[in-house]
This record gives sequence, structure tokens and C-alpha cells, in this order.
Amino acid sequence: MTPDVEAGASHAPARGCRGKGFHLIGSFEPELGGYLPEATVAYETWGELDATGENAVLVAHALTGDSHAAGGACEEYPRGGWWDPMIGPGRLIDTDRHFVVCANVLGGCSGSTGPVSEEPGDGRPYGPRFPMVTIRDMVRAQRRLLDSLGVRRLAAVVGGSIGGQQALEWAVEYPGFVRKAVPVAATGALGPQGIAMSEIGRRAIVDDPDWQGGEYYGTGRSPEKGLALARMAGMVTYQSAAGKWARFGREPASRPALHREFGGRFEVESYLHYQGRDLTGRFDANSYLYLTRAMDLYDVAAGYASPEEAYGRIGAEVLFVGISSDWLFPPGEVRAAAARAREAGADARYVEIQSDSGHDAFLKDWDQMEAAAGPFLKSSTTEDRREI
Amino acid sequence: MTPDVEAGASHAPARGCRGKGFHLIGSFEPELGGYLPEATVAYETWGELDATGENAVLVAHALTGDSHAAGGACEEYPRGGWWDPMIGPGRLIDTDRHFVVCANVLGGCSGSTGPVSEEPGDGRPYGPRFPMVTIRDMVRAQRRLLDSLGVRRLAAVVGGSIGGQQALEWAVEYPGFVRKAVPVAATGALGPQGIAMSEIGRRAIVDDPDWQGGEYYGTGRSPEKGLALARMAGMVTYQSAAGKWARFGREPASRPALHREFGGRFEVESYLHYQGRDLTGRFDANSYLYLTRAMDLYDVAAGYASPEEAYGRIGAEVLFVGISSDWLFPPGEVRAAAARAREAGADARYVEIQSDSGHDAFLKDWDQMEAAAGPFLKSSTTEDRREI
Repeated sequence: MTPDVEAGASHAPARGCRGKGFHLIGSFEPELGGYLPEATVAYETWGELDATGENAVLVAHALTGDSHAAGGACEEYPRGGWWDPMIGPGRLIDTDRHFVVCANVLGGCSGSTGPVSEEPGDGRPYGPRFPMVTIRDMVRAQRRLLDSLGVRRLAAVVGGSIGGQQALEWAVEYPGFVRKAVPVAATGALGPQGIAMSEIGRRAIVDDPDWQGGEYYGTGRSPEKGLALARMAGMVTYQSAAGKWARFGREPASRPALHREFGGRFEVESYLHYQGRDLTGRFDANSYLYLTRAMDLYDVAAGYASPEEAYGRIGAEVLFVGISSDWLFPPGEVRAAAARAREAGADARYVEIQSDSGHDAFLKDWDQMEAAAGPFLKSSTTEDRREI
Repeated sequence: MTPDVEAGASHAPARGCRGKGFHLIGSFEPELGGYLPEATVAYETWGELDATGENAVLVAHALTGDSHAAGGACEEYPRGGWWDPMIGPGRLIDTDRHFVVCANVLGGCSGSTGPVSEEPGDGRPYGPRFPMVTIRDMVRAQRRLLDSLGVRRLAAVVGGSIGGQQALEWAVEYPGFVRKAVPVAATGALGPQGIAMSEIGRRAIVDDPDWQGGEYYGTGRSPEKGLALARMAGMVTYQSAAGKWARFGREPASRPALHREFGGRFEVESYLHYQGRDLTGRFDANSYLYLTRAMDLYDVAAGYASPEEAYGRIGAEVLFVGISSDWLFPPGEVRAAAARAREAGADARYVEIQSDSGHDAFLKDWDQMEAAAGPFLKSSTTEDRREI
């Protein structure tokens, strides 16, 4: 998966679907231990960086996302950009004004270094020898990419779910580098219910005999059943109860059952089976293990004396966006994170999207996403106003 | 598992932990097809049936429950009765006044005929050849047991979760036989979110290579990993988000991890692993498949022109008990079921337990359970009042 580029060098990224760039960030020491002698970050950009180097917006993707945030469908990304309606000329993230960057996370499987990458000097993929990477590690790797691209400051960092954790971590880790941060459907620490569902997914993968202790690459078998099951568990947490009633109700299955008696009697089951199978075609099971664990482990206070000390570091204006029907990061917890940041002295506010779409609302309720974040992103920052 | 008794004969059940009775109900035709040439119902009783035969109370167990609703710990039931604080002299279900019966459901694995039972004439367990059984089938089998015990009418039928579905179905299926019904944490039809979680559990079982198409009996292997994972998924739905925060928070695991990197970093994970393993020691994986499917399939309106027609049949007074933090059968849906029954002409009311314990509140919040159902169960029925 690692392209043939030299350390420090970057391929110029193509526009739309014409490809992506790869940046070798050099060696990397994950905060929880281990060592990556040469790490790569895959990325795409849209719009132009201006002379100040301060008109950049970083978009952080969610668990199974990738760098293709915007642009149409193409061979590598047949669905097109996962946030395309939000990114473009005149859109929420305006490519006429901003230089937009989206990078595949460290530990991912869409071009950045992860478990599927070849271990240097070893000739085979890391697999389970890949070190644990954290949300902070992902952010630090993105920082190196942005530095190499000439970005001197982020006008904004925006993301949902683990992308939202990254947006928050950016504001805490690099206070002087970020003007605005928009963590969507994310808090400073995932609750035990979310951790439980993550673990059900991981357990499904490691229990799959085809996982082979994580050393399945090149064996002709991979834990597709386990990964599909993990995806099914994930999907339940991404949608709301009301949304499932509206979409599936108790309708009988429209697709054939996997097993005569068990499976596929109801449409909601067929949907989950489809989603499960679908992910196996485009995602690496080990990456799924690492990234869900990073989501669980993320604690904004890690390494600080208290959450207050962490939130107190924030220099950016922060807009926490909650979703009324979110099960994974319930709106009350997102609101509480905003309040905690504010109490610690941060310029933090909270807005809630009223939607039955659940956690995934940020990936489908475009008008509401625009209404929630648009005024904040398009307003001048306090600092801009001071400059006037 | 089928005891050596003749059709129509009953063993006298022992009190407390001294054992249980088995009743051969003869041949049975499940409503969705198939045929059981000889079906057995395992049961226990407490208290004495009076001369009228109308002082009986039927207690219906939940998914992984059994006939041991009351009584202390013993070899077969080391945890003691699963509803013991609710059943006894002077308790919610008063054994000084009532003849209390609890039967293992058809399709179960605690003495009643189910997939683990030997298929007559075949010499090996039914396994996947066991016919699908429904909540209505379970109720019909219970009716045969009660008839054989001399019960002429139920003073009450009470149960939670799939036991609550049975309580409701009793009121609909046998309008003249039931005076009071108390469905707890149950509705006339499970929603798609609950079905989704059921299916994740089933999928974990059938994907486990040790399931062997359901023919694992006698092979020395059984789908323990799959069943454990199914239990983990179930446990998430039995507890609330607030309850998990209070009980587990983000505390680190106190038990060793199953896998070095993945699993067991947080206490909530250790808890789920423990619960998963625990169930494998006392429950049959095929039964889990059949009973969760019965829960999904239950639709009070099945076989009637409409839910109204079904609810309109009810002759009993019905108390629907919802639990404020229930994820599986959300309180709004339980309340709506009560309203629908009332609109159809039934004497139905609704009461809600305010608790962070989630779906499982009926198995632990004894005082609240007593407060919710006590006045209803202890009051005279309308009919009693008419008789006075």
C-alpha cells in the first residue's frame, strides 16, 4: 500500500477523482509505544492555499472513511466523496475561499500507514505487530502533512465521530494553529455503551478463524464474516430507533436469507447483512480493530492533570455539534463537553441537529449540517474582528 | 432431556430446589409448521391450587430464564430463583394465596422440548430440524400444562421481555381464562432496532464454525464463541446508557484481557466477556437462535385482521409496565401498546418504572417492580367487585 515516494516528498494530489497524494512523514513514534520507521499519509486537497498559508480547512473522516471527502465517483471511490455536498465552491466548506485537505488516518487502510502496510525490512504487512495508534497520533501525523503542504494555520478543522474526536484533539494539541474547530457527534471520551459495541465488533473479528491471529494477509482468507458482523453492530449504533422504525419497520426481507431459518426474515436484517458484506470489500479487518480501539481510548484529558487543563489549552473557537438521536455520542454528552470546555475558558458553544438519522446524520442530513455549522464557519473569528 | 414419563402424566413438582416437574403435553403442531410428536413442558409450582382452580398465577420467564422462578440456590440452579424476591408468602405474587406456576418455554433448553431434545424415532437431538416455535406456541403449550394441573382460570399471568410477550398473548389467545395480565417491558411487536440486535447475536452463532449447521451435539464442540458474542450483544440492550456510565464508566478492566491488544482494556468489556462466557455454561446455542427469533416474530396481530381485532379480544384487565430507560422495548412503545389495547376496548392501563437499569429493571429493581404491579395484582378485579 505504501507508494514509492521518498521521505519528505509529496506527490501533487489530483483534483476530484484523479487520484490522491501520498506524503512520507518519516519516522513516527506513537504515544503508547512502538515505532514506525517510515510512515505515509495519503491525502487529497481541493482549492488553493493562499499566500498567507492560513486559508486551509482540514476535514477529518469517520471510522471507515478515507481521504476522498469530495469529488465524484471513480474507480477507487465508486461512491464519490463522502462529504461532497459539504465541500465545493460556495458550499459549507468553500473551495473558492479555502484550501481543503482530507487525509486518511494513521492506522487506516486507504493509503496511510496501517496494519495492512508492509513493515520496512520485513517484507510483509505489519498485521497485529502494528503499534496501537491514538487519535492524538492521527492528529500529529496530519500536522506533519499540513506543514509539508505549506499550511501555516488552519482556518478550521471539521469532522464527525472519530473525525470529531480529531477536530477536538487538534484544538487541544495545537492551540496556536487552529482558528475554528467543529467536532460533530463526538465528545472528549466515548461512553461505556459505545465501547461495548466497539468490543462486540472486535470480538467478532478476532473470533473469526480466518483472522488467524491477525496474520491473514496473503493466506487467501480474511475474516470477512467477523468484519461483516462488526459492521452490523456498528450500523446499529449509527442509526436511531425512530429512524429504523421509519426506514424498516417490521417489513419482511426483500433479499434472500443467508440461512434458511435464521437470518433475513426482516428487511432490517437484510440491510445489515448487505452493509456487512459491503464493508468487507473495501476495508481491512485489522484496521477496524485499531481504529475502533483508538475511538474507545480517546480521552481529551490523557496526559493532562484534568479535562479542565486539556480544554483550557484551546485557543480556537469551538462549535460542538450534537445530534438529537445519536446513540453513540448522545447529545447530552456532547453538550456537556461543550459546557466543560467553556468552563475551562475555551470559546466553546453547542448546537444540536434535530434529526431521527442518529449518529450518521452528519453524513446524510446535509441541510441541517449546513444550518448547524454554516454560520459558525462563515463568520469572522474573534481574532479577525480584532484585526478589522 | 425428555424425562421418562407417559403422555398426559405429570411428576409432582418438588418445592424450592427439590426439583421440577415434567409434563408430557403429547403431540404439538407449531403454528408456523412442523410437528412435535411428543412435547414436554418442564415446570415448577409454589403454593396450593384451591378448590375453585382459579387462584393460579402463571409466571413467564425471559429469554435465557427457566422454570426456577422462585426458591433458593441448588445444584441445578446455583443462582436461586430468578424472581425469588417477587414470589413467596406475602410477596408481590403471594404463595399463601396463589398457586404459582412457571414453565420453561417450548424451544427452551431447561427441560421443555427444544432443539437439544431427542427427536423421537431418530435417537439424536432435533438441532436445526426443530420447527420454529412462536410466542403463541409457548402459550398454547403452557395452557395444556395448566389444564393438566387442574387450573380452571388464571388469576394472573405475569412476565417480562419475551415473558411479557407471553403475558400479552395469553390475554389475547385465551380471553376467558385470564383475569389479569401484566406484560412487563414488552409490546405487541418488537421494533427493528431490537430485531437488529437479535440478528447480530444469531449471526455470531451461525458464523461460528463450531455451530456446524446446528448439528454440534455430541461432536465435542459447540459454538461457545458465537453464543458468548450473542450474549454480549444482548447484554448491551438489557442495560441503559446511564446505567453503564454509573456502573462501568471508563474504568480500566479488572480482569485480564482475552487478547493482548484487543479486548479487556475497559471494565465494561470485561463484564461483557464474563457474561458471554457465563451463558455458554448454561444455555444451548440453538435454543438461543429459536427463542430470539420467536421474540422478533411475535406480532399480537398475527392471524387477526388488525391489531385492534387482536387487542379487542382481551377479557382480562391488563397492566402494561414500561421501564423509562428500556432500549429493547422503549417505554413509549409500551405506552402506545397500552393505548392501542384501550382503544380496542380492553381494560388496559400503563405504568412506568423510573429506573436507569434499562430493560433488565424487572429482574433487579424489586421495590419498583412491586410498586408498579403490586396495587394492580392485589386489587380485586372488576369481576370480583361485581360478584361482591
